Amino acid sequence: MQDLDTPSTAALRQLDTPAAVIDLARMRRNIARMQQQADALGVRLRPHAKTSKCAQVVAAQQAAGAQGITVSTLKEAEQFFAQGLTDILYAVSMAPHRLPAALALCRRGCALQILTDSVEGARAIVDFGRQHGHAFEVLIEVDTDGHRSGITPQDDALLAVGRLLHEGGMRLAGVLTHAGSSYDLNAPEALTALAEQERAGCVHAAKRLRAAGLPCPVVSVGSTPTALAAASLQGVTELRAGVYVFFDLVMRNVGVCSEDDIALSVLTTVIGHQADKGWAIVDAGWMAMSRDRGTGRQAQDFGYGQVCTLDGTPMPGWLLSSANQEHGIVSKPDGDPSDVVARLPIGTRLRILPNHACATGAQFPQYQALAPEGGLTAWGRFHGW
Amino acid sequence: MQDLDTPSTAALRQLDTPAAVIDLARMRRNIARMQQQADALGVRLRPHAKTSKCAQVVAAQQAAGAQGITVSTLKEAEQFFAQGLTDILYAVSMAPHRLPAALALCRRGCALQILTDSVEGARAIVDFGRQHGHAFEVLIEVDTDGHRSGITPQDDALLAVGRLLHEGGMRLAGVLTHAGSSYDLNAPEALTALAEQERAGCVHAAKRLRAAGLPCPVVSVGSTPTALAAASLQGVTELRAGVYVFFDLVMRNVGVCSEDDIALSVLTTVIGHQADKGWAIVDAGWMAMSRDRGTGRQAQDFGYGQVCTLDGTPMPGWLLSSANQEHGIVSKPDGDPSDVVARLPIGTRLRILPNHACATGAQFPQYQALAPEGGLTAWGRFHGW
Repeated sequence: MQDLDTPSTAALRQLDTPAAVIDLARMRRNIARMQQQADALGVRLRPHAKTSKCAQVVAAQQAAGAQGITVSTLKEAEQFFAQGLTDILYAVSMAPHRLPAALALCRRGCALQILTDSVEGARAIVDFGRQHGHAFEVLIEVDTDGHRSGITPQDDALLAVGRLLHEGGMRLAGVLTHAGSSYDLNAPEALTALAEQERAGCVHAAKRLRAAGLPCPVVSVGSTPTALAAASLQGVTELRAGVYVFFDLVMRNVGVCSEDDIALSVLTTVIGHQADKGWAIVDAGWMAMSRDRGTGRQAQDFGYGQVCTLDGTPMPGWLLSSANQEHGIVSKPDGDPSDVVARLPIGTRLRILPNHACATGAQFPQYQALAPEGGLTAWGRFHGW
Repeated sequence: MQDLDTPSTAALRQLDTPAAVIDLARMRRNIARMQQQADALGVRLRPHAKTSKCAQVVAAQQAAGAQGITVSTLKEAEQFFAQGLTDILYAVSMAPHRLPAALALCRRGCALQILTDSVEGARAIVDFGRQHGHAFEVLIEVDTDGHRSGITPQDDALLAVGRLLHEGGMRLAGVLTHAGSSYDLNAPEALTALAEQERAGCVHAAKRLRAAGLPCPVVSVGSTPTALAAASLQGVTELRAGVYVFFDLVMRNVGVCSEDDIALSVLTTVIGHQADKGWAIVDAGWMAMSRDRGTGRQAQDFGYGQVCTLDGTPMPGWLLSSANQEHGIVSKPDGDPSDVVARLPIGTRLRILPNHACATGAQFPQYQALAPEGGLTAWGRFHGW
């Protein structure tokens, strides 16, 4: 077996398991694809750093042409700002108690944009900003698909929030939407239709603000599926997407990537068997994979992940079918796994493609970045808030 | 609202959110309960540290009478050994590539016990141990409920593994089993029956080894539900259990605790609403709660968690019904939530009881330990491997 090693598989044998491996060739291809899409549609790309929470991954996105980043926590903002990024959009509604931390970031030179979707939230920003003599740059969240937060484009509250921010002395930066319901689709035409709904709703909101005499320079839309499915982004200024950098099995089922595009996998070791049941027991349980079972409600259920050989080749029908904290069960639910002990002896190394790259990555303090020529580098990632 | 604060709620208002809060009074009560159960049944208690991965929590368990700990990774073993614990059972089948790290721990003075459940695994231990002149202390994993790993008590492989280890110069420490299928039950009589099955199977395995002239000083059983339901542990020497230290909604549904026993909660802040839908949006998403939906297949489904007021009082019918990465949706699925904006205005702090304490705790770099008199202390926990 060792005789057949490539430089990559030889390198992976040296790691302890479980480990989160990034296939750099795939990651770079994914980054280039989304950048080309944004370029072709004539908009800036502002990647969502919540997927990787990793300086090197974000640096690769910026090097490919991205402008600024999106973050989901102020800790991400602080960490990336410390690494030299200044153009940061915090795309979760601003909690009043976090305004002092946001102000501190701004005063240190961060061009931080914050978000609100209510009169109540806007008033807290205005009151705090005035009290401290700071004009926060604020986006209004627009709800274009009903899946979570935001003000619908036709709602009177949109103008009320816009006026409150503008007249209260804040810098009304524009509107933002995220059609997260795209994760529930799997047909190209449905994705393209949702992308158009996302675009049209957000542009409509921007027009209403402008018609009311309010500034609205930024029109920000996106989710990985709608970003890749959009036929036009007329009126939009920037695109946001996160998970595309790694992709995962959920995105494969949505139909925006193939298994061969998935850049994140969990390296694991076979530690035992239940031969009668056709099981190999591995050391990647849910602590490594996360508890995400996103493919469980999709057309093809991959359990806790698709099993691949050490070189990354999928083993058709072999799934991480069950998981405890530090144990995973590898089996072939629809096949004959009677050769499991001979095929996957103790010590065998496998790689598991995850349901959801954002959730799986978060289980690890670091990634192992695997270069095409086989070099491995540890890349740290943030944890917590 | 602030006028009505207790010292505890006042302290919790000072934390950033989300935060993982330990109610120390409940934790100590849970620890005392399990210790009393072990004492009453005449066995040692060896708590599983994988639930907390926290030095202070484990110290509280030892102070209450526990003897040694169980761990699920060698990193846990290394961390707890560094903190002065020496009696450590690594209760996951030994992967051959981890033997050098295990040996290093032993040579530094750790009384590390390791586990195997196959001839193949035992041979790797024997070969490595002999090569390095070290007699590893090894337990054989016994399968008493078919849920995962282990050799069934009547299997010939049990004696083969025992002989291989003993004759190979290792210290055969005994047998271990974990009836993890107890998580699927919810009737006291079924739990007691499974506890007896777990006990009887493991004791039978021990007797077979002894009858074959092999040593078997340790007979180790347990899971939180079977530990609490056991009527007798005759022939058993030690009990293992993990999640009891915090308990959670899954354990509440299994029937071994009440909501009032759950010592871990996630502190969160309301950041917005969708009034028409009766939703409050909070800053605890799945990154804080984990993706664990363990109650989804139980009699009472709590979504991503039971919502409580800041003082920890459950709000009947209010659930964290949906979760994205950093957004949670609080709603009352079976009630009239039309007053959600008035009842839970932006900035409101809530506490969410988790489905699975082991999974939720792992999302946080630290716990906030809340003393009965309201004092808060940050307790670190390990992450990764």
